[in-house]
Amino acid sequence: MHQPILILMAMEAEAAPVGEALKLGPPQALNPQLPSRVRIGDVSGSATILVTHGRDDHFGVDAIGTQPAAVTAWAAATHYRPRLIINAGTAGGFARHGAAVGDVYLSDGPVVYHHRRIPLGAFEPYGIGSYPSMEAGPLARALNLKLGRLTTGDSLDLSDADARAIESSGASIKDMEGAAIAWVASVLSVPFLAVKSITDLVDAPHPTADQFMQNLDHAVSRLAGVMPQLIPLLATPA
Amino acid sequence: MHQPILILMAMEAEAAPVGEALKLGPPQALNPQLPSRVRIGDVSGSATILVTHGRDDHFGVDAIGTQPAAVTAWAAATHYRPRLIINAGTAGGFARHGAAVGDVYLSDGPVVYHHRRIPLGAFEPYGIGSYPSMEAGPLARALNLKLGRLTTGDSLDLSDADARAIESSGASIKDMEGAAIAWVASVLSVPFLAVKSITDLVDAPHPTADQFMQNLDHAVSRLAGVMPQLIPLLATPA
Repeated sequence: MHQPILILMAMEAEAAPVGEALKLGPPQALNPQLPSRVRIGDVSGSATILVTHGRDDHFGVDAIGTQPAAVTAWAAATHYRPRLIINAGTAGGFARHGAAVGDVYLSDGPVVYHHRRIPLGAFEPYGIGSYPSMEAGPLARALNLKLGRLTTGDSLDLSDADARAIESSGASIKDMEGAAIAWVASVLSVPFLAVKSITDLVDAPHPTADQFMQNLDHAVSRLAGVMPQLIPLLATPA
Repeated sequence: MHQPILILMAMEAEAAPVGEALKLGPPQALNPQLPSRVRIGDVSGSATILVTHGRDDHFGVDAIGTQPAAVTAWAAATHYRPRLIINAGTAGGFARHGAAVGDVYLSDGPVVYHHRRIPLGAFEPYGIGSYPSMEAGPLARALNLKLGRLTTGDSLDLSDADARAIESSGASIKDMEGAAIAWVASVLSVPFLAVKSITDLVDAPHPTADQFMQNLDHAVSRLAGVMPQLIPLLATPA
């Protein structure tokens, strides 16, 4: 088997339509000790593996956020040895950068954090991070997608401190997992790409949580439409 | 070999004196793909394994924070199958809870996060988290240590949002790794205990970073004094 493409997604509500659109198999356990679930299939001749974090046993919700993202990425990538790790999902966008709900972005340039503040010499840039994502310009042009810098934090809302960090990095896509997965990809020397569909405008007057619930289905449906076009363009090893 | 005790520590400057105090072996690689380092020894008849996150290759500093903590805990705990995971290190304390620099605390009650805000129904308590730590009252009394609730966030400083979350949880020890490690321990059904030596008072007028640098040696020396007393009390399987 060629090295597969590994797609990591945080929420089952995001992953189920993508798994169906890619005609992957039914979800099964990744690891007996993790709640993560895996769907496997072949897309245009490339083994394609979609892994979700799974459900937190204690709280009964999808295990979103950077800690489950990092552990799931590590467990899945050391097991499947992918040649590319894609983090697909939903994210916040910014009206000031021209985003609209349902826009699908590819990550452009290094992925950063906006919630890790360590004002202690060389720990400061470490906290912000800088994890490579693959050159996605040609893919964005071929599929008519947007490009933006991805920033990650562990909160759905936006604190004043988060807002300052995002202003400073110039990022235009805000999610809750990307940088943690890009960090694992960089540690394992595997190329990384994020594909994010916009559920909410972070700089709009309405709270993110309300917009998120209202727009989740639409954003996921846009993502599920894009993935079967995107994966074949990545399916031939270089 | 009995199941070992696994001690996880974020910084080499914290781990080296503890490794020496416990008479563990020299540091070696945990895993060819992770920068984590491991020191192994026998303490009062119990196999004892100290693992650090190691140095971030790109930024040249210790890989502190919850994402490396979670991955290192996962990689070390699935490899060594410990019967207890201890997160030892330094932390911030609170003058309003009676803390002084150099106090050593054991974690008491569930470990929580203060930086994961997800105001979306059942995701809100999931974000805060609630990860068990073992009953440490008898150990604290035997060794004359303090007990406190541990709260974790990815920043060394304290934003207004962090301060509100800590006020709300009533936590009295603030670190950057504990909850991520306690989460991995809970996923693997392994008991967890945090041992934290106070470098700075979060509610003091001086910035945490200045206090941290000034008091690190003293706090680490207190921790290195406590660990050889603590581990023998945990060394006999129940």
